[in-house]
Amino acid sequence: MNAEKMPGTTIPTLIPIDPLRPATEQKGIHNRWHPDIPPFAHTKPGEIFIAGCHEWTGGQISNNDSADDIRNVDFTKIHNLTGPIAVEGAEPGDVLVVDILDVQPFPQMPWGFTGIFERTNGGGLFAKEWDSKAAKAIWDFHGIYAQSRHIPGVRFAGIPHPGLIGTAPSHELLQLWNQREMALIEEHKDEDGNDCVPAVALPPEPKGAYVGQELDDELRQKIYSEGARTIPGREHGGNCDIKNLSRGSRCYFPVFVKGANLSFGDLHFSQGDGEISFCGAIEMAGTMTLKTGLIKGGVEKFGMKMPMFIPSPIDPVYSQKIVFEGIGVDLHETGRQGNMDATLAFKTATRNCIDYIVKLGYTREQAYLLLSAAPVDSHIGAMVDSPNACVTMGLPTAIFDRDILPREEGLERRDYGQCAIRSDGII
Amino acid sequence: MNAEKMPGTTIPTLIPIDPLRPATEQKGIHNRWHPDIPPFAHTKPGEIFIAGCHEWTGGQISNNDSADDIRNVDFTKIHNLTGPIAVEGAEPGDVLVVDILDVQPFPQMPWGFTGIFERTNGGGLFAKEWDSKAAKAIWDFHGIYAQSRHIPGVRFAGIPHPGLIGTAPSHELLQLWNQREMALIEEHKDEDGNDCVPAVALPPEPKGAYVGQELDDELRQKIYSEGARTIPGREHGGNCDIKNLSRGSRCYFPVFVKGANLSFGDLHFSQGDGEISFCGAIEMAGTMTLKTGLIKGGVEKFGMKMPMFIPSPIDPVYSQKIVFEGIGVDLHETGRQGNMDATLAFKTATRNCIDYIVKLGYTREQAYLLLSAAPVDSHIGAMVDSPNACVTMGLPTAIFDRDILPREEGLERRDYGQCAIRSDGII
Amino acid sequence: MNAEKMPGTTIPTLIPIDPLRPATEQKGIHNRWHPDIPPFAHTKPGEIFIAGCHEWTGGQISNNDSADDIRNVDFTKIHNLTGPIAVEGAEPGDVLVVDILDVQPFPQMPWGFTGIFERTNGGGLFAKEWDSKAAKAIWDFHGIYAQSRHIPGVRFAGIPHPGLIGTAPSHELLQLWNQREMALIEEHKDEDGNDCVPAVALPPEPKGAYVGQELDDELRQKIYSEGARTIPGREHGGNCDIKNLSRGSRCYFPVFVKGANLSFGDLHFSQGDGEISFCGAIEMAGTMTLKTGLIKGGVEKFGMKMPMFIPSPIDPVYSQKIVFEGIGVDLHETGRQGNMDATLAFKTATRNCIDYIVKLGYTREQAYLLLSAAPVDSHIGAMVDSPNACVTMGLPTAIFDRDILPREEGLERRDYGQCAIRSDGII
Amino acid sequence: MNAEKMPGTTIPTLIPIDPLRPATEQKGIHNRWHPDIPPFAHTKPGEIFIAGCHEWTGGQISNNDSADDIRNVDFTKIHNLTGPIAVEGAEPGDVLVVDILDVQPFPQMPWGFTGIFERTNGGGLFAKEWDSKAAKAIWDFHGIYAQSRHIPGVRFAGIPHPGLIGTAPSHELLQLWNQREMALIEEHKDEDGNDCVPAVALPPEPKGAYVGQELDDELRQKIYSEGARTIPGREHGGNCDIKNLSRGSRCYFPVFVKGANLSFGDLHFSQGDGEISFCGAIEMAGTMTLKTGLIKGGVEKFGMKMPMFIPSPIDPVYSQKIVFEGIGVDLHETGRQGNMDATLAFKTATRNCIDYIVKLGYTREQAYLLLSAAPVDSHIGAMVDSPNACVTMGLPTAIFDRDILPREEGLERRDYGQCAIRSDGII
Repeated sequence: MNAEKMPGTTIPTLIPIDPLRPATEQKGIHNRWHPDIPPFAHTKPGEIFIAGCHEWTGGQISNNDSADDIRNVDFTKIHNLTGPIAVEGAEPGDVLVVDILDVQPFPQMPWGFTGIFERTNGGGLFAKEWDSKAAKAIWDFHGIYAQSRHIPGVRFAGIPHPGLIGTAPSHELLQLWNQREMALIEEHKDEDGNDCVPAVALPPEPKGAYVGQELDDELRQKIYSEGARTIPGREHGGNCDIKNLSRGSRCYFPVFVKGANLSFGDLHFSQGDGEISFCGAIEMAGTMTLKTGLIKGGVEKFGMKMPMFIPSPIDPVYSQKIVFEGIGVDLHETGRQGNMDATLAFKTATRNCIDYIVKLGYTREQAYLLLSAAPVDSHIGAMVDSPNACVTMGLPTAIFDRDILPREEGLERRDYGQCAIRSDGII
Repeated sequence: MNAEKMPGTTIPTLIPIDPLRPATEQKGIHNRWHPDIPPFAHTKPGEIFIAGCHEWTGGQISNNDSADDIRNVDFTKIHNLTGPIAVEGAEPGDVLVVDILDVQPFPQMPWGFTGIFERTNGGGLFAKEWDSKAAKAIWDFHGIYAQSRHIPGVRFAGIPHPGLIGTAPSHELLQLWNQREMALIEEHKDEDGNDCVPAVALPPEPKGAYVGQELDDELRQKIYSEGARTIPGREHGGNCDIKNLSRGSRCYFPVFVKGANLSFGDLHFSQGDGEISFCGAIEMAGTMTLKTGLIKGGVEKFGMKMPMFIPSPIDPVYSQKIVFEGIGVDLHETGRQGNMDATLAFKTATRNCIDYIVKLGYTREQAYLLLSAAPVDSHIGAMVDSPNACVTMGLPTAIFDRDILPREEGLERRDYGQCAIRSDGII
Repeated sequence: MNAEKMPGTTIPTLIPIDPLRPATEQKGIHNRWHPDIPPFAHTKPGEIFIAGCHEWTGGQISNNDSADDIRNVDFTKIHNLTGPIAVEGAEPGDVLVVDILDVQPFPQMPWGFTGIFERTNGGGLFAKEWDSKAAKAIWDFHGIYAQSRHIPGVRFAGIPHPGLIGTAPSHELLQLWNQREMALIEEHKDEDGNDCVPAVALPPEPKGAYVGQELDDELRQKIYSEGARTIPGREHGGNCDIKNLSRGSRCYFPVFVKGANLSFGDLHFSQGDGEISFCGAIEMAGTMTLKTGLIKGGVEKFGMKMPMFIPSPIDPVYSQKIVFEGIGVDLHETGRQGNMDATLAFKTATRNCIDYIVKLGYTREQAYLLLSAAPVDSHIGAMVDSPNACVTMGLPTAIFDRDILPREEGLERRDYGQCAIRSDGII
Repeated sequence: MNAEKMPGTTIPTLIPIDPLRPATEQKGIHNRWHPDIPPFAHTKPGEIFIAGCHEWTGGQISNNDSADDIRNVDFTKIHNLTGPIAVEGAEPGDVLVVDILDVQPFPQMPWGFTGIFERTNGGGLFAKEWDSKAAKAIWDFHGIYAQSRHIPGVRFAGIPHPGLIGTAPSHELLQLWNQREMALIEEHKDEDGNDCVPAVALPPEPKGAYVGQELDDELRQKIYSEGARTIPGREHGGNCDIKNLSRGSRCYFPVFVKGANLSFGDLHFSQGDGEISFCGAIEMAGTMTLKTGLIKGGVEKFGMKMPMFIPSPIDPVYSQKIVFEGIGVDLHETGRQGNMDATLAFKTATRNCIDYIVKLGYTREQAYLLLSAAPVDSHIGAMVDSPNACVTMGLPTAIFDRDILPREEGLERRDYGQCAIRSDGII
């Protein structure tokens, strides 16, 4: 019998993180994608390990009742990822199997936050439409449940997951990313050559870049100046923000560099499909329990261009829902007719749902945050009925502490106060 | 005791349809939206009734092994809808509650079809990418299950639903629709003034229009020349093609005209999220069992701009899935970088899934048809991580007659033949 | 292409039944188990067919508001089963695979019934405790839903299934059944040699026996005098009354005679676990759509002593429930301490649930009928904690048209009237 | 803002437990039920707290490959419960609401065990039939999953729950328990006046009794000599071993004494319905995160005689199952005909399932342990079809690492070794 199996043994922690200290003071954290970031830790296929993760901003947000910290977030410093972790034997073309065995908040930090970001600093689904101002909800973790003093009357089971997880890109892939995203930025500049606001994409940016390892200066500068930003999901996974990539799921990633060099973070206690307010999930710091495996030559075996996964058997089940339809026409603002525009259809479905929640007495900001954080399901309905894409959003009824079904007598409006807003009172 | 409750009583059929005769020979069918189409039948809130529905093309497709009929479909003649049915007491501003109590194929026509349409006649999600040629799968209905001689090795439980159901538009709403869609058509014309192919939207078109009622000529011409086409879903519902609007669901529609004037059709035995091959669902003729209700002033009570619904408790549950991720970058063709483009992300996720299915031995056409018809779930993952929208597609493993999980040894390729294609053999 | 696949073709009906005529006037019905009942129809593995089924009493119950018909049911005439159907190639030791592809009520009889039987005629779970008198609820089928004028305020999705389905016993098996059940009857006779009331088991009984086929007299008398009664489930399946053996399930039966000789009936539109009021399910007449298959030597291959099945993917899902615990102590009547008595624990859990429902305003009879008919789940909790077995009963909240959760303010009692009772008013 | 809401704050631990030290050396643990055990800790409605729990035997079992420790368990020393915890304001007749917010193993003890107990020491469902000898499986906790070196080839998501949780009995209730259980013991003595083996119930027993508090001697002796044993579930809840009373569930307990005096323990990482091998669940030490509430006069408001609960939304979902039927006849041993005997029907269903698993290559002991520990569902099928009760057991297919469906070619037998057995090799 080996030591692992004896009483008193614990699962080893490969990378410990202290969520109460700034991320930039800690090892094993980085906030750019680059093939030359050396592995900070190593594992073998079949080994189980724990790794800590800071919350995505690395400590910029406080548990208080003001949204000023959201307003002031420094985006050059995100996401604070844990890793890279090299997997013995992994080579380009292999598939890295990652069992996400558990995702838990730190006991010393049983809370998280959801934020609406300013139009000019981060944005979000309705940044333009509403000229968004910072707002925030703090969520307390009560075991498997989240509830918020800023959005009373709701409680729901978390579906903890890494918003961001992926393997390191190869040099070729990194170059491809930077090229295509720079081209997009160029394309969306205004007549005076100014970048679009909110930004359509973020270019490499040495300012704020961080790799928590000993590196020689030249390498560090290379990584900082070339490293891809972490906001979008890409071919390697990355910031896909898929709520069902949750604890208990088994994930398959293509490997692009020797060792695979897995990194992850941006832990969410819960999230709604779409993560609409940008920092829409319940952002938290916490631990991942992981096990890796390898399928040699798996990229070819499965015809993979992107990750795939088997969802967890313990994702929350709320069978009763109110489902809101949305078509690809801007019914709430301009009346604009889209052309098979699923993005617009999603926005319309979301707005239809928000309008309903507002009828219950919540403010628009509360509703926006709630749909970002609660386990709402958004399905593609139809994507072929020109010109209107159709998307749905399903709101589980049992997360409310009262009956919210559409009864004949209409909806009872209650006073739920307001979420945390800016200290200057502007919303 | 009233008559309804006696032995031997049946639920009354408000509108009978013969699926084996052409739709255009039958009463109570129409294929345009217009407020002046008189109600063909009447019901009262609380009454239960049955109404037959032709399949959407009205009889243009045969149960055979050639896709020539798909190639030649006359789109001016669709969708063949049943109705309108006026509900006593309904007025604009009310909400019409519709219980979809059951949806069943006709016993005399226990089969349906899924089609890939030509790029130049109907299109579909990949019409341009693949310069689609007509292809077809015939599905036999074995009780709750569908299976197809054209796509061997799969069987799944149906989730029968009306692809199309909605209330009649008001004159104002009709005008709005036609205006915004005509503008879109204009916008997408090429330099020579030719319409985009496939069409971005369809304008009113008297040719092929049909209202199966006695009408005076002037009214008929008005309806035919102004009536909105039925392809897109709109504010009233219409062709939303939402697979979960299935038997057992309770739906809420805004009322725009006196009597509400409900119409429906385009019955599907099953559909995957997205209905990707355009005629992607399993199209069938059949019966709807319905009950209506009214919530006076409901549009205001619930803040409704579009329909909403409570899903059925009997939608199929397949807990084990392989989920494919897709980002808003065209990874399969051009490499194009989208800008928060959920449509593109959906296409990428779909292509990733198709590639996997092709590894099992199915042809691309079979895979395309299968994803259109089987109960696959597509979720919006994240819609805020610029520039990449993230969408997922979940393939249930239990619909296959063998283990298709990604095992270490890779995927066994079997020979599944081919679906029905054009008689000239072009695919 | 074969004829089955052409438009206008229907699935063949092997055994047609008219639900509005008495069962004993019709062919292909029998109400005893005996190996010598000749097959009435034949099928081959892989063929799909429909067979009609009378309701279990064969027409003794009316759609009215009196329970006198329940009081007077002639038990010698039940269950009216459809069959036997011989399957080509089936031999003892094989496993007969039966796909229950669909179960539907007859369109001309869209209703069913649930009955409480008299203590002296049929009994039920609480026959002794309550000295049960006849009562009845008529349920109307509204598509997938059932609702009853006798139990207002509830509506639930059906889970249609055959209460009874099985292969014919061999002579040896029949003899075993009769022996062991006769012994039980003997064992429970009172001091004067009278049978227990309600009966612990029913012996073979020529009176009321029926086989709807041409038979020579000698054979008929043999079958009538030896044939096993149909009330209990046994090794071949039979009257197992398992609600999840529903449409869409795939069942595996041991074969005991050449041809397997499958019979079935006692169709239920819905049933709660336990089917507590004896005629507890929603009894209906209807059709089964079936397909058979064979696994040669399957009894040995799978170590089978009894049937097994794969449940349907479309069984109703009601995620929110109130679960009532029950231990093997008679808390409601005598205080009797059981000895690992799951039957008693089930009764206690059921009583605990009934008490709750009565607090809502339903009568005890209504509650008894409701739990018999609605999709309640009863689980074995623990069967090892001597002396108390623990059983739970889960009541889905969404079947009620109002919020029934245990709120701080208690339960609102409403007036729901009463179910159908005896014309002499005795309950 | 209060302290609870600040960064760095943790949920308070009311009762800490060290799982690596014997239970009897620790405070806040007791192993008998008695109204006079003083509350060890106090809470207020609405407060969230954590409490540690030892595993049920208090440290008698080791993580090794011998079952000798199982053979030698001292039953007078179980269950080691945490508590009692008094809830401010609770009075007899109230309902105590307990939110089981989380249940987690201790990080320093990420493993648990399942045991088969000797017929003469503990027993189990088949203690008599198999003259059970001690056997054991150690399970490692890999995040949400359990897997065992003693039962290779399976992995399943845990459904962590307290096997035992309840309020303190009043003096009257305690007396009732002891009376009725003593009577049962008397009733089952053999002709020589010896207790039945295995025991039908356990009388109060001072030997091994433990209350981890300062008590005066007289009180301690009173509690030890009168205190009810903890094996059976009773009116207050107690050792109900209901797998779905899991983390995320909301429970309602009747209050019998001032303060309610809640105790709990016997944590299970997972359990199958029935917990068949007695120590059938995966027994573990760990922490409970709890919140209480009060419904004044709730016993009367809800008509409660026993606890009820709302299940968790995150219980594992395995939609595909093989369901084994069982009737109340002893088909595997004696052929005995039961009389509406659900206990026997459950045993038969279980045996049918075990026989199937053995065909896969597992030993009988492994199969027995697996069904005890894995999330198998056992439903009461029918409880009215005299003389045979019908019970089902559903085995989820996805917990196996290979396809175990009943295919035509039969089941492939693999070599899975054996679980831990006695050091003398006797099984």
